[in-house]
Amino acid sequence: MSKSVAGPEIERLVQLLAKVPGLGPRSARRAVLHLIKKKEQLMGPLAAALTDAVENVKVCSECGNVDTMDPCTICADQRRDPATLIVVEDVSDLWALERASAMNARYHVLGGTLSPLDGIGPDELNIVSLVNRVSQGTVRELIIAVNATVDGQTTAHYLIDQLQGLDVQVTRLAHGVPVGGELDYLDEGTLTAAMRSRTSI
Amino acid sequence: MSKSVAGPEIERLVQLLAKVPGLGPRSARRAVLHLIKKKEQLMGPLAAALTDAVENVKVCSECGNVDTMDPCTICADQRRDPATLIVVEDVSDLWALERASAMNARYHVLGGTLSPLDGIGPDELNIVSLVNRVSQGTVRELIIAVNATVDGQTTAHYLIDQLQGLDVQVTRLAHGVPVGGELDYLDEGTLTAAMRSRTSI
Repeated sequence: MSKSVAGPEIERLVQLLAKVPGLGPRSARRAVLHLIKKKEQLMGPLAAALTDAVENVKVCSECGNVDTMDPCTICADQRRDPATLIVVEDVSDLWALERASAMNARYHVLGGTLSPLDGIGPDELNIVSLVNRVSQGTVRELIIAVNATVDGQTTAHYLIDQLQGLDVQVTRLAHGVPVGGELDYLDEGTLTAAMRSRTSI
Repeated sequence: MSKSVAGPEIERLVQLLAKVPGLGPRSARRAVLHLIKKKEQLMGPLAAALTDAVENVKVCSECGNVDTMDPCTICADQRRDPATLIVVEDVSDLWALERASAMNARYHVLGGTLSPLDGIGPDELNIVSLVNRVSQGTVRELIIAVNATVDGQTTAHYLIDQLQGLDVQVTRLAHGVPVGGELDYLDEGTLTAAMRSRTSI
C-alpha cells in the first residue's frame, strides 16, 4: 500500500485481501472494487460464507482434515475402507487425491514436512497420532503420498522408521512420466525412475 | 470446480472466492486453506471487514466515488479545489490518480465508457450529472482523464460535445513516453504523439 486513497474501512479491506495468497496490493484493490460493484450477488454472500467458516470450520481430530464436522465427512463415512490409510502433507493434497477419486481410503494429514531449518521437527507434525492410529491394527496398507520433494522424501523415510515393527504394509506413489507429459521436457530423475519401473503391456 | 471434496460450507466459500477477480478455482482453494490456517489473524478480520463494507460502503451521490460517507471524503474535503474537476472512467482510475497525488482537484466518475456493442449508451454513464455539475459555474477547468483507448477517446469526444457552450476549459492528459519507458518498446502512435508534443528543455 503506497498511500491511502479510499476511506479507512475500504483500505482495511484492501489490506486484508492483499494477504490472501494469489492476491497482491494491486489485485486486492481491483477485487475490492469488483466486490463493491457486485455487493448483493458476491460481497454479501462472501461475507456470510466467511463468517460461517470462521465459526464452524474445525480440524478433524482423527485425520487433520478441515471440515465443519469433527470427525470429518471422510472419517465419518462408513463406506471408506478403514484398512487403507493415505498419508499426505497437507489438506490441499487430500483434496487433490479426492478430486482424482484415486482410492476409497481414509487419510492422515501430517500438516507439513520435516524441515529442521524452519524449526519443524517430528513434534510439529501429526506423526504420533499416525503411529497410534496404525498401532490399533485396523490399517493393513499405509500409502505414503507425500510430495516427491527432498523434504517430502526425508519425511517419508522418518515415517517408515517410526512404523518399524508395526504389522502394516507401507507403499508409496509410483514415480514416472505424468499422463500427457512429453519426455523431452522431463528431468533425468523422472525418466530414470520411469524406465526402472517400466511395466509390460 | 471439478468435484466437491470438502464440506458444503467450505465448497461454497471456494466457489465464491473463485469469482473474485485475480482468483480462479485452484487459487481460491489455496486461499481458503490459507484462511482456515490463519483463522484468527486473517479469516476473522476479513469476514468482519467484508460485513462492515457490505453495510457501510456507498456510492457518492456527488461524484460516483465509493466510500463509507456520502458525499465522499474527497467531495467533503474543503481543501480540494472546486474549480478543477477530473473526469475518470472508474473508481480505480480515481485511486490511481490519488496515489500519484497529481492534482488537488475533485473528481467525477463516469462509471465506464460508451460502448454501443455492450449496450452502454450515455444514459448508463454519469454524464447528465457531470453536465449539471459543470453548469453550476464553479468548475473552471475540466480535465478529461479517461483511458487512452478507442472507447475512452470516443467517450471523451462525446463529453466535449455535451459540454459545448458551457464556460469551462476542457483539457486532457498528455500523451507521451511513460517515465522510465524505453523507446524501443513503444508503439508508433505513442512515439508520434510524444514527438509532436515535444517540449524545449
